[in-house]
Amino acid sequence: MARKKVELFDSTLRDGAQGQGISFSTDDKLKIFAALDRFGIDYIEAGNPFSNPKDLEFFKSVRSSYGAKAVAFGSTARKGVAAKDDENVAALIKADTSHVAVFGKAWDMQVTDIIGASLEENLAMITDTVQYLKSRGKAVIFDAEHFFDGYKANPDYSLEVLKAAQKAGASVIALCDTRGGCMPEEITAAVKAAGKICDVGLGIHCHNDCGCAVANTLAAYRAGASHIQGTFIGIGERCGNANLATITANLQLKYNVSAVSEAQLQTLTETARYIAEVANIKLPGTAPYVGGSAFAHKGGMHADGVVKNPASFEHTAPDAVGNERRLPLSEVSGRAAILSAIKRFDPSLDKNSPETKAIAAKLKKLEQGGFQFEAASASFDMMVLRELGKFTPHFEIDHFKVISSQGHDGAEKANAVIKIKVGDSYEITADEGDGPVNAIDKALRKALEVFYPELSRMHLIDYKVRVIGGADTAAITRVLIESSDGNDVWTTVGASEDIISASVSALTDSLEYMLLKSNNHI
Amino acid sequence: MARKKVELFDSTLRDGAQGQGISFSTDDKLKIFAALDRFGIDYIEAGNPFSNPKDLEFFKSVRSSYGAKAVAFGSTARKGVAAKDDENVAALIKADTSHVAVFGKAWDMQVTDIIGASLEENLAMITDTVQYLKSRGKAVIFDAEHFFDGYKANPDYSLEVLKAAQKAGASVIALCDTRGGCMPEEITAAVKAAGKICDVGLGIHCHNDCGCAVANTLAAYRAGASHIQGTFIGIGERCGNANLATITANLQLKYNVSAVSEAQLQTLTETARYIAEVANIKLPGTAPYVGGSAFAHKGGMHADGVVKNPASFEHTAPDAVGNERRLPLSEVSGRAAILSAIKRFDPSLDKNSPETKAIAAKLKKLEQGGFQFEAASASFDMMVLRELGKFTPHFEIDHFKVISSQGHDGAEKANAVIKIKVGDSYEITADEGDGPVNAIDKALRKALEVFYPELSRMHLIDYKVRVIGGADTAAITRVLIESSDGNDVWTTVGASEDIISASVSALTDSLEYMLLKSNNHI
Repeated sequence: MARKKVELFDSTLRDGAQGQGISFSTDDKLKIFAALDRFGIDYIEAGNPFSNPKDLEFFKSVRSSYGAKAVAFGSTARKGVAAKDDENVAALIKADTSHVAVFGKAWDMQVTDIIGASLEENLAMITDTVQYLKSRGKAVIFDAEHFFDGYKANPDYSLEVLKAAQKAGASVIALCDTRGGCMPEEITAAVKAAGKICDVGLGIHCHNDCGCAVANTLAAYRAGASHIQGTFIGIGERCGNANLATITANLQLKYNVSAVSEAQLQTLTETARYIAEVANIKLPGTAPYVGGSAFAHKGGMHADGVVKNPASFEHTAPDAVGNERRLPLSEVSGRAAILSAIKRFDPSLDKNSPETKAIAAKLKKLEQGGFQFEAASASFDMMVLRELGKFTPHFEIDHFKVISSQGHDGAEKANAVIKIKVGDSYEITADEGDGPVNAIDKALRKALEVFYPELSRMHLIDYKVRVIGGADTAAITRVLIESSDGNDVWTTVGASEDIISASVSALTDSLEYMLLKSNNHI
Repeated sequence: MARKKVELFDSTLRDGAQGQGISFSTDDKLKIFAALDRFGIDYIEAGNPFSNPKDLEFFKSVRSSYGAKAVAFGSTARKGVAAKDDENVAALIKADTSHVAVFGKAWDMQVTDIIGASLEENLAMITDTVQYLKSRGKAVIFDAEHFFDGYKANPDYSLEVLKAAQKAGASVIALCDTRGGCMPEEITAAVKAAGKICDVGLGIHCHNDCGCAVANTLAAYRAGASHIQGTFIGIGERCGNANLATITANLQLKYNVSAVSEAQLQTLTETARYIAEVANIKLPGTAPYVGGSAFAHKGGMHADGVVKNPASFEHTAPDAVGNERRLPLSEVSGRAAILSAIKRFDPSLDKNSPETKAIAAKLKKLEQGGFQFEAASASFDMMVLRELGKFTPHFEIDHFKVISSQGHDGAEKANAVIKIKVGDSYEITADEGDGPVNAIDKALRKALEVFYPELSRMHLIDYKVRVIGGADTAAITRVLIESSDGNDVWTTVGASEDIISASVSALTDSLEYMLLKSNNHI
């Protein structure tokens, strides 16, 4: 087969959602979809409309206005049911996407022992399903589930499955290491065998159960696969899926593949961190290319070497993936990336302006204190405006107190007292709420609405809390608050050892941002 | 060269200590040394006695009574200094270990640009250092730093370096991908080239900057390397070192290598979790073989498949590495998953027992109320025990009050008062903390430790909060608390409109779980 153009296929919203502790709201899914699209992902597998009918709504909302193709996922028709009568297949059609991914078994043991079908029946189910979906105008990506284990156990049958899918009209055949148990040389051999009988694009879908998902995917690419499946930050069932961010960087920087543009690759780090924030998981500092420590040099000899020549201890330039070098005892120079954000408020600034350097230094300090701005651009804007002297606070908090209690009867109560200052006026008020954060939120708004009635239009959409630092006592709490006025949505961040202070800080930014917006100052 | 017996070499205490946020006390180092020794590691690189003189003391304490060989690490003599007069080499001798590891540059650019020596001088430094250490009775492991990049840039010179070290008497030549930037096929080619000129054991030392450290190490093994370096849980500079736990499992289970005994391999999970505890870092749930989610099946079809035949979605039996299967209990997984969890407490129950149905109904109700048990199996166990009438609470909370405040000076304060009942006794106490959750956590533990001193062994590892439901007023807060007693890790969940109540609920489950565990009831 001839080498096809490399396509990136992300399954964060489908296979990634199978990861432990992962639970996406519809709004989370939309955000991740948009971020993957901006990065340049070709296909975004976004849900299983049969097992989760809510996904039908989601597919409706991403049908247009994105370059990436939304893909609905499902299985072949059940044993004994024609594809045209199968509920799962019907849901795939109802999703109304141009592309669908359907999986069928490619390991004889799975066919006989798990779905209880004969080997012939399985081939017929695959043929019927792919043909029917094709006849309904779908481009079909066929996921050959357990292909690699199947190839080891019964190579002929596993290849028969691929032939059936290809003959029925699949446009891509994705070879899956479903259990994640294969070694790279096994992947290479099986992909080569598949390449001999397939003319359509070959895909690869790996899991990380042996810590080899990235290398296995690259081995498949070298053996002829062009359609690369993974999840952007590696989340997924068990040990996760192949990490698509790592794979993309390796393909571009090690194998000179142009799957995305250079500019898009420079958003690799930002995109990975954003997706982790939305998924409410902690991206490991050690994550290849995108982790906070990926270009951090702790050893003295290493730090010295990197100062003499970055290539001495860095295999690639951090800029290429939008990350940055971290050196102990040395100032990080201003990021080119933040300059474009700063320029929105003062186009006269450049990389060497004292203001740019001051903001870079402030950013670094805040990040050390637990702030993270990747997913909180409203707080970033507020910080820049403050540093540029272009911001006059609309209010000050004089003091507050929050009391949470649970009585003998088990009843919970939370109330807050707050005093604020606006110009020369003071307002003191109190409110109660569902928990201390809600109580202080309500009291603060109540006091502010005396002065700024437009704040009544604003409401909280999401509130996320992460404890960073590991240890319990000295831990820092980071709070992300997402707010909306019905039209726009913005996110702010606060960090402190105290969850209430962190929340009040993020809330203050959010309220100030709303006030700036409603005065057209932002 | 002939295939040598596979040797495992762990550098957690040396290269691992270069990881961001890692800092070992002498006591930590002793604990990790003993754990690695029990597991069956052959060589334990435990420090650099020149750059860290405290390590001299440490080497003294591990000199005897362990099967594993302690290895002192250092560099070749400096340019222009004879090995016998070099302070670094002197420190290596002073460490008084049978084995030393010394690194020398194997990449021409590094020699000329970083240490400013000629290529000949570098060879002479290596020869002199290895010969001198040999003459002082040391077995010398020579780390050929940057060997793979050197082989790409100037293959002849990189091989000259290996020849010099071998001729001078090195017993092992470890080939290092110091920058972690090589792809597996590059490793294969360079190891094969090295094998052609080396008769002594070849070693491999990889870093994970491209997410390929495990696969690169395995590629080197297949190309002839027998001395396998790594850090047990993958900690190290930048993106970390090759993960020795993953590699060992792959070598034993995929390549039939007997580096450790079967019984030792069954302690893989326990050893990795213990080292993570001592290093005070969180082992990712997704860690291959040893993670809490490594054998967890969330998808309904996967859970059903595994119940029918574990091999359907598991590439190896969790028992082989001392881990266990988890069938998470979200609404996506079926009744089968619930039943297998329940059966642990009452084997007489089946799918149609009234208890099973009652628990399924309770689970559904709790999930609608915001609970999520897939990542909180300890809370699930507690719920099942409660429903089966097999649980008597160790304590009751009579009432509590938490006060958080911020004064005129901006200073934050949080304190909590709590009264609990244990049997017929009451205990009332107070504490303060970093924020209200920390304050109530501390007060509750303080009150309980009067009755249950064993709770002092338990500590919080992670605390996550998620607001679900979208709207702000009626929103439900879900709290996940991860706790540990140093051996096991368990997760509990609480959900409520009030973050304090949700936290207290998750905390109560966690404390009760610890008490059940320490009484061997769970």
